[in-house]
Amino acid sequence: MKIELVAVGDELLVGDVENTNAGTLGRRLTAAGLRVSGVSTVGDGLDAMIDVLAQAVRRADAVIVSGGLGPTSDDRTREAIAAVAGVPLHRDPAIEDWLRRRYRGMNRTLTALGLQQADVPEGGRSLPNANGSAPGIAVEIGDVAVYAIPGPPHEMIAMTEEQVLPDLLRRAGEPPIRAQRQLLTASIGEGVIAAMLEPLERELARDGAVEVAYLATAGQTRVKLTSAGPGGAAEVDAAAARARELLGGCVYGEAGDTLAGVVLDLLRGRDATVAVAESLTGGLVAAELTSVPGASASVRGSVTAYATDLKGSVLGVDADLLAAQGAVHPDVAARMAEGVRDLMSGTYGVATTGVAGPDPQDGKPVGTVYIAVAGPEGTIVLSLLFSGSRGRIREMTTVRALDLLRCVVAGLPAEQDPACTG
Amino acid sequence: MKIELVAVGDELLVGDVENTNAGTLGRRLTAAGLRVSGVSTVGDGLDAMIDVLAQAVRRADAVIVSGGLGPTSDDRTREAIAAVAGVPLHRDPAIEDWLRRRYRGMNRTLTALGLQQADVPEGGRSLPNANGSAPGIAVEIGDVAVYAIPGPPHEMIAMTEEQVLPDLLRRAGEPPIRAQRQLLTASIGEGVIAAMLEPLERELARDGAVEVAYLATAGQTRVKLTSAGPGGAAEVDAAAARARELLGGCVYGEAGDTLAGVVLDLLRGRDATVAVAESLTGGLVAAELTSVPGASASVRGSVTAYATDLKGSVLGVDADLLAAQGAVHPDVAARMAEGVRDLMSGTYGVATTGVAGPDPQDGKPVGTVYIAVAGPEGTIVLSLLFSGSRGRIREMTTVRALDLLRCVVAGLPAEQDPACTG
Repeated sequence: MKIELVAVGDELLVGDVENTNAGTLGRRLTAAGLRVSGVSTVGDGLDAMIDVLAQAVRRADAVIVSGGLGPTSDDRTREAIAAVAGVPLHRDPAIEDWLRRRYRGMNRTLTALGLQQADVPEGGRSLPNANGSAPGIAVEIGDVAVYAIPGPPHEMIAMTEEQVLPDLLRRAGEPPIRAQRQLLTASIGEGVIAAMLEPLERELARDGAVEVAYLATAGQTRVKLTSAGPGGAAEVDAAAARARELLGGCVYGEAGDTLAGVVLDLLRGRDATVAVAESLTGGLVAAELTSVPGASASVRGSVTAYATDLKGSVLGVDADLLAAQGAVHPDVAARMAEGVRDLMSGTYGVATTGVAGPDPQDGKPVGTVYIAVAGPEGTIVLSLLFSGSRGRIREMTTVRALDLLRCVVAGLPAEQDPACTG
Repeated sequence: MKIELVAVGDELLVGDVENTNAGTLGRRLTAAGLRVSGVSTVGDGLDAMIDVLAQAVRRADAVIVSGGLGPTSDDRTREAIAAVAGVPLHRDPAIEDWLRRRYRGMNRTLTALGLQQADVPEGGRSLPNANGSAPGIAVEIGDVAVYAIPGPPHEMIAMTEEQVLPDLLRRAGEPPIRAQRQLLTASIGEGVIAAMLEPLERELARDGAVEVAYLATAGQTRVKLTSAGPGGAAEVDAAAARARELLGGCVYGEAGDTLAGVVLDLLRGRDATVAVAESLTGGLVAAELTSVPGASASVRGSVTAYATDLKGSVLGVDADLLAAQGAVHPDVAARMAEGVRDLMSGTYGVATTGVAGPDPQDGKPVGTVYIAVAGPEGTIVLSLLFSGSRGRIREMTTVRALDLLRCVVAGLPAEQDPACTG
């Protein structure tokens, strides 16, 4: 079954908004064993939408259109689908009723344009939207299944998971699933990971049953092990076991895990808690930890001591140390971690200080970073030097802080293990 | 002149690699006054490439194909272009010579597949690649200009800047630059903004010189005013002035501004500082403020009091209040804002508390949010109810907290203005 994606919106063409939906859907459908055969982006103009949509319908067995379902005059996806299907639009009274109640509940006016969100091409059905006002559409054009889903990522994802994907899988019958496992690592570059896995790559090259690929994103590297054909789960499992042997504590989890989630699980399993003290990351470490549902069981809280004097007055870093060394120093990181651990009564304290840029600070170059973890067994400090933009330096620091915490909580040799110091 | 982009590669369809080239090219061509009318992504298969490329050539005046030019068996862009043009491929001896020298210099073997990089469709020409091995192609198909450029972003950008863009601008003659302004708002939905601008939309509908479009992203709505044809800056300026009149304090900035950046500018202009107390946002408000270079001039710091007892022990919220009302209460938000203002000696304190989910808390439903700003003139609290995922509720809360701070610092009537309370 070939599936095409069509993203609608002038903002995507001019690059005001990145079309992240294409990647998100591509990964999700691929993981479900389905095949995305093409992606198109088209503006808000009706004629262009009709043309692009008709081509997608001609080529594919299913088409997912995202965007253009909202309450403004440039939302014309409903019209375009009806035109390609050659049917009129009908107003769905149940959706109209739901929209009226929803807008009343939000104390907002439902305009005539807003009401168009209840329109469905004849023969199609509405897809309820639990996360927004614009319902989706499912309709058959010939023997092609066409779905229209909202453009905002969180609405798009929910409607895909709950309504579109089950429908597609039902239509596809038994999908030709290739076995895959993904090992997640943080703190080490793609090149180093590949070098560590060289023995495995040599072994795999002999029989060709499992393919290895690397996918690097800010501070993290994903190792993908995929069977060369359908099936092959046993071969992939064996390759994954060998890869874990070679990578050791560097692997923090597998597909579906997040670094913050793994850290929180480790803490919960040990009845331990964490408190965070941040400087250059300015709240990112705490935000990442608290993004996980149930974080309140293990996260005490955090202090961003952005101004240097607050590192003393709130976190208790010695004023003489700050005066002598400035805020960017390994001892300051250590005292911040210990200070926030005391202040918030956490089992562990984790701290970041450094220079995110654009300007050097206290005589230290941009990218200088110190990360500390304080715990029952003492305090560990990492000294790092990152390159890149302010945003990248903050992001890399956040990943490394979470990974150092992981190593310390898990009892991994944080000072020797390349996962934790490399 | 309509320009279509075609990105080639299986890795884009499955989402292993995000198609950032589309956004990059979209922004670059738009900035040059050119118009991207469509984007397609297609896999490495020859038939699919020929089909997609032929459609793009049918619709557009120029087509830029990225990717599929390299030295492996799945690089078939040259073949596809020749097939659509209906001409054979010829080997360019100058490029062949250059390739042989280049590979020799890198001590690498030039295979038969590698030599195909010297192939050009009859009637076309090679585009030299200063940053990689794969030369590009420029060829006319009918009266459509077709360019093939490498997929790796740095090669793609360099070849676009130096060779494709000058050629496109020459073909376009005087580029039809359309004037545009973008007004940025936070805190109000797209529908409400559209209703507030209805008088302007009516006025503009009469002469049709300026088009209005809305772009909604988490908690923010962008109003885009674009001239219908080339020029029209005066008309767009007049429409922008009228829109600002209708939207009042809801507009926080224009294209290029960020909400956090605007808030920091306001604070700096008043020699004021801010301290943040977070619960459900868990560090996001502080992280957003400190993402702006130079934030240290105005951001004192923040406390994430995620555990309820820390709202008392660190921020000084009255223990009886917490015991009686729980952590999710407007008075708790107010005391948190006042407490962090005191603790960190800020001019302003801003606080968030609420239920991000997935489970209700203290008898309050998911999405219940209180935001407070404490300042020299007293304390204001917003009571809100958001829908959506945990991530979205945290994101919306962050935007609203920054926007309430903006209104208070700017002296806007935060309690009446829909920008601040709607």
